[in-house]
Amino acid sequence: MAELRLNITMSLDGYVAGPHPGLEAPLGVGGEALHEWAFAQRSFRAAHGMQGGATGPSDDVAAEWIEGIGATIMGRNMFGGGPGPWGDDPWRGWWGDDPPFHTPVFVLTHHPREPLEMAGGTTFHFVTDGIEAALERAVDAAGGRDVALGGGARAVQQYLAAGLVDDMQIHVVPVLLGGGSRLFEDTGEIGARYRLVRSVAAPAVTHHRYRREDPGGA
Amino acid sequence: MAELRLNITMSLDGYVAGPHPGLEAPLGVGGEALHEWAFAQRSFRAAHGMQGGATGPSDDVAAEWIEGIGATIMGRNMFGGGPGPWGDDPWRGWWGDDPPFHTPVFVLTHHPREPLEMAGGTTFHFVTDGIEAALERAVDAAGGRDVALGGGARAVQQYLAAGLVDDMQIHVVPVLLGGGSRLFEDTGEIGARYRLVRSVAAPAVTHHRYRREDPGGA
Repeated sequence: MAELRLNITMSLDGYVAGPHPGLEAPLGVGGEALHEWAFAQRSFRAAHGMQGGATGPSDDVAAEWIEGIGATIMGRNMFGGGPGPWGDDPWRGWWGDDPPFHTPVFVLTHHPREPLEMAGGTTFHFVTDGIEAALERAVDAAGGRDVALGGGARAVQQYLAAGLVDDMQIHVVPVLLGGGSRLFEDTGEIGARYRLVRSVAAPAVTHHRYRREDPGGA
Repeated sequence: MAELRLNITMSLDGYVAGPHPGLEAPLGVGGEALHEWAFAQRSFRAAHGMQGGATGPSDDVAAEWIEGIGATIMGRNMFGGGPGPWGDDPWRGWWGDDPPFHTPVFVLTHHPREPLEMAGGTTFHFVTDGIEAALERAVDAAGGRDVALGGGARAVQQYLAAGLVDDMQIHVVPVLLGGGSRLFEDTGEIGARYRLVRSVAAPAVTHHRYRREDPGGA
């Protein structure tokens, strides 16, 4: 049974992006600091077409995050391009011609758009009929493999509140952003629903993994 | 120069107490789990008049937290007894006749009350003229030692927003409470103000310590 697996990095004060995001600072003020740990890991770099990188506990976590994923879901904010209709020369994502997903990617949006095929196996599909429809389509596309849930915060909150996330890895970086997009907001009663299965402490980041107690559904 | 030092334990989803606090569950649903790590440490137990306990990295952190403190500040919610005037048979705190503070304790409240002297060196003073007045009185009372800032969340947020916290230790316990009293809310631009000086990973808790970049004031 395919699982929906969340992997996301959060500041100590609870944000997945800093305040005042924009084209020049897509992750908001200070938000880049959240992802330094990932960009330093060998397996994450390889997935992004980069050489080198560290091995060790954080690399193991990053490798596990990438492994066995057959489709990806993300919110409109993570895909980018601002709110509203797509326009005549629509935004093609933050990641260049060969995005690091290498799978079908289902983007949650209120604005319809034709699929966008990129190099390296990534095709962006724009889903306008909600999170459950996006998950169904992603599960189908994944062909027995798992579905990765990226950000942003609002997309994650909707899947958490609906009880649809099977496995989550929260990477906590001890920076303070003081504002931005908060991850844990309006998530419903997640306390009883998830069980901590592992904490891995590494320099500059702590990785916590949780499993849903009842994988059958909420 | 006396410092204001915050020590507080937070759930991974950012709460210092769970939802629905009341007389029977003063820390809210699930909130007790936040403090299991502290109650297991030798130095914390000794301060609370209990025998035994663990030694190790978390005990070192707990010992440091207690050391050199000459006065304590807390909010009305942490002192307890519910909101509003104190009444004829007023609440005497959660801690019995010999509270673990062993210093003067300044309780932030809107409702005046005579000081309350307890055993073991703890006297509760009720401060109705705001956080800066409470800090001044606490610094005076501490006689050159530091001032500890306890909870609840609202008291901490006020001191953080005013730029008055010199040193903070945030103990993160990877439980998910799903709601309750959020620590980092309305704190202002703390990102630029604090520098991480240490992270200590221990079983079931990670201790992060931050120092204010400009100890001269905000």
